[in-house]
Amino acid sequence: MIYISRDAHFCAAHKLYNEKWSKEKNEEIFGACANENWHGHNFDMTVTVKGQVDPDTGFVMNFKDLNAIIKKDILEKVDHKNLNLDVDFMKGKLTSCESLIVEFWKILNPKIKAVTNNRVVLHSIKLNETNKNYAEYYGE
Amino acid sequence: MIYISRDAHFCAAHKLYNEKWSKEKNEEIFGACANENWHGHNFDMTVTVKGQVDPDTGFVMNFKDLNAIIKKDILEKVDHKNLNLDVDFMKGKLTSCESLIVEFWKILNPKIKAVTNNRVVLHSIKLNETNKNYAEYYGE
Amino acid sequence: MIYISRDAHFCAAHKLYNEKWSKEKNEEIFGACANENWHGHNFDMTVTVKGQVDPDTGFVMNFKDLNAIIKKDILEKVDHKNLNLDVDFMKGKLTSCESLIVEFWKILNPKIKAVTNNRVVLHSIKLNETNKNYAEYYGE
Amino acid sequence: MIYISRDAHFCAAHKLYNEKWSKEKNEEIFGACANENWHGHNFDMTVTVKGQVDPDTGFVMNFKDLNAIIKKDILEKVDHKNLNLDVDFMKGKLTSCESLIVEFWKILNPKIKAVTNNRVVLHSIKLNETNKNYAEYYGE
Amino acid sequence: MIYISRDAHFCAAHKLYNEKWSKEKNEEIFGACANENWHGHNFDMTVTVKGQVDPDTGFVMNFKDLNAIIKKDILEKVDHKNLNLDVDFMKGKLTSCESLIVEFWKILNPKIKAVTNNRVVLHSIKLNETNKNYAEYYGE
Amino acid sequence: MIYISRDAHFCAAHKLYNEKWSKEKNEEIFGACANENWHGHNFDMTVTVKGQVDPDTGFVMNFKDLNAIIKKDILEKVDHKNLNLDVDFMKGKLTSCESLIVEFWKILNPKIKAVTNNRVVLHSIKLNETNKNYAEYYGE
Repeated sequence: MIYISRDAHFCAAHKLYNEKWSKEKNEEIFGACANENWHGHNFDMTVTVKGQVDPDTGFVMNFKDLNAIIKKDILEKVDHKNLNLDVDFMKGKLTSCESLIVEFWKILNPKIKAVTNNRVVLHSIKLNETNKNYAEYYGE
Repeated sequence: MIYISRDAHFCAAHKLYNEKWSKEKNEEIFGACANENWHGHNFDMTVTVKGQVDPDTGFVMNFKDLNAIIKKDILEKVDHKNLNLDVDFMKGKLTSCESLIVEFWKILNPKIKAVTNNRVVLHSIKLNETNKNYAEYYGE
Repeated sequence: MIYISRDAHFCAAHKLYNEKWSKEKNEEIFGACANENWHGHNFDMTVTVKGQVDPDTGFVMNFKDLNAIIKKDILEKVDHKNLNLDVDFMKGKLTSCESLIVEFWKILNPKIKAVTNNRVVLHSIKLNETNKNYAEYYGE
Repeated sequence: MIYISRDAHFCAAHKLYNEKWSKEKNEEIFGACANENWHGHNFDMTVTVKGQVDPDTGFVMNFKDLNAIIKKDILEKVDHKNLNLDVDFMKGKLTSCESLIVEFWKILNPKIKAVTNNRVVLHSIKLNETNKNYAEYYGE
Repeated sequence: MIYISRDAHFCAAHKLYNEKWSKEKNEEIFGACANENWHGHNFDMTVTVKGQVDPDTGFVMNFKDLNAIIKKDILEKVDHKNLNLDVDFMKGKLTSCESLIVEFWKILNPKIKAVTNNRVVLHSIKLNETNKNYAEYYGE
Repeated sequence: MIYISRDAHFCAAHKLYNEKWSKEKNEEIFGACANENWHGHNFDMTVTVKGQVDPDTGFVMNFKDLNAIIKKDILEKVDHKNLNLDVDFMKGKLTSCESLIVEFWKILNPKIKAVTNNRVVLHSIKLNETNKNYAEYYGE
């Protein structure tokens, strides 16, 4: 079993805001992240998959294929977007790193399995909001 | 003459949009940066000042003082904000890196001179929007 | 289960020196790290905790709270200090990365559990002495 | 159990090419990586070992010893070399990151055990071909 | 006058070898870089241009246009290539960083001027062979 | 004229302390940097030299030679040392980044000229104490 990882980047606006709470409570919990006019980040994502090495290619999975899935199914939907307003799969959800990677998992895992005939599965998704904070998810 | 530099970071939303142009022309020129619902970045800024070394401190300028100016006069106004909507000195201006650093210069240079009795002057401001693109200004 | 990580940095002096050994043996084993007048590092630390996502915040744990614990219980004790002389919990111990993270664990784990009502636990601590060497501990 | 990691770097030429396939099929699968005149990379490697802390040194393993093994048994064979032509243990193999780390494992694991009297074992090898792509192997 | 910079990356094989010299002299001067079977690097390039800010766009030059020139006129010729064998403008030349950036300058400067009607000129090219060594050229 | 740069790193202890001042004044001016038991850093240095390209080598100066000078005349004196106590050329001087690079200049410039028969001169020295603060000197 070998693990391969691909980094991807997107620039997006968002705010952390729970609609069930008052403005004051949102500011207390989320601080400056609750700014009503949005703020934004350069998000850095690492997608890790695992599987056996294909003896003909020396690859677990062609990086070209992994990259194409990440680009089409994630980056085109979130890059240069507002995560709260523009992204169908985040509608009505909090746009924390933790929530984003759970939704990314639901999208990426079936695509990776389909492209590789279940030979390769998603292992983890890591998402950095800044270079000091990040979240990771292993699907369970 | 020695040059000293301090890095600072802020997270902000913005869009590149010229109000004199149609939506189509804005998208043609600014691409995804014209997204009407905003996008955002982790901006990385380097502020460089120059002067003689003070023989009592070994410093051109105390980093603590330089940091305090950057924090109070720039970061508190732009960090976790919308550069187009929330920042007084950007009202009615395009929020490109180039425009931002020209406005930052107007704010920082007199403060740095005042704090150091004209012993130290601003030399340059560098601003990265992503880790692939940046702008620099030397005040002339 | 989601993992979230926070990076922290501290600048400290130390030396690697076993008082039971001669100066010669210390230099043989620890090389330049045994220099009697100390040397120092910019230490980079990553603290990773794990737990369920709180549906009201979208957070495993508020980064603000995690950051406050790291700052008060670790950084204020080690930053701009001599790890051998100034740090109560390292008295009489070797100040290798390995030893430091075991002591950090004992301090951080109960605080993280207390602040989160046992909802969140420490998962790992990583400590870089330089950008080429690092140690990691998972508490067991 | 503590994990310690050492980074190492090497610069090498290679190509991805399966001799059983036509030039066209190689270009279809490997893209620009199949360029017959070679291309190259600055490879970044992280070697992680695990063991108990030695109470006399505070070390899992002396970084000096780990570094010496990596340098003699890997770097001297691959740095400033052609991975397909110059490296004995890659003869007849595909020079993907995945294949390289499996071969590195076979070399490093017995050496690390021998030097530490089986007190320390190899935990993982990570290899970056670019700063966007990497592979990891845990020996099983 | 504002300066804007764009980073670009390419992966290439090369060797440092002066055909007028013996193999021994090449190895004496160029060390491991003279390896006859090539070695390679991930080259990191920064292209800096300078000009006035266009009041309609807030840009010195659209990064999209700068990027397109770098991609078409440099990256497509050097990325995943052998710098000594595959690159028309390096034929018969030494492929040191210093030589590469002088040739890149001759290609990029007229293109940048043409695209901007002489409003913008090339200011500098920086090229990193590794993250420890780099060369810079200002065109004079 | 081409500029080439070499990065170097050293780990050292120091404190910022003016012997003419009281302990209180030192703490007021230098803050935590005045800690009497020292603190330390991983210092990152960039040495830039300039000259014409030698047509036989394609080099301004062989990086091997530049590296050897930096290693012998700077790194061996400061790496894993106490900058205030162990370094002959810093005796009685403040060990700020600004002071360090002025002293480094006096040492490096004549050596670089001597090794290159005045064909190459030192252009600048940059020194980072942390990844947020740095100083630069151009020799005048």
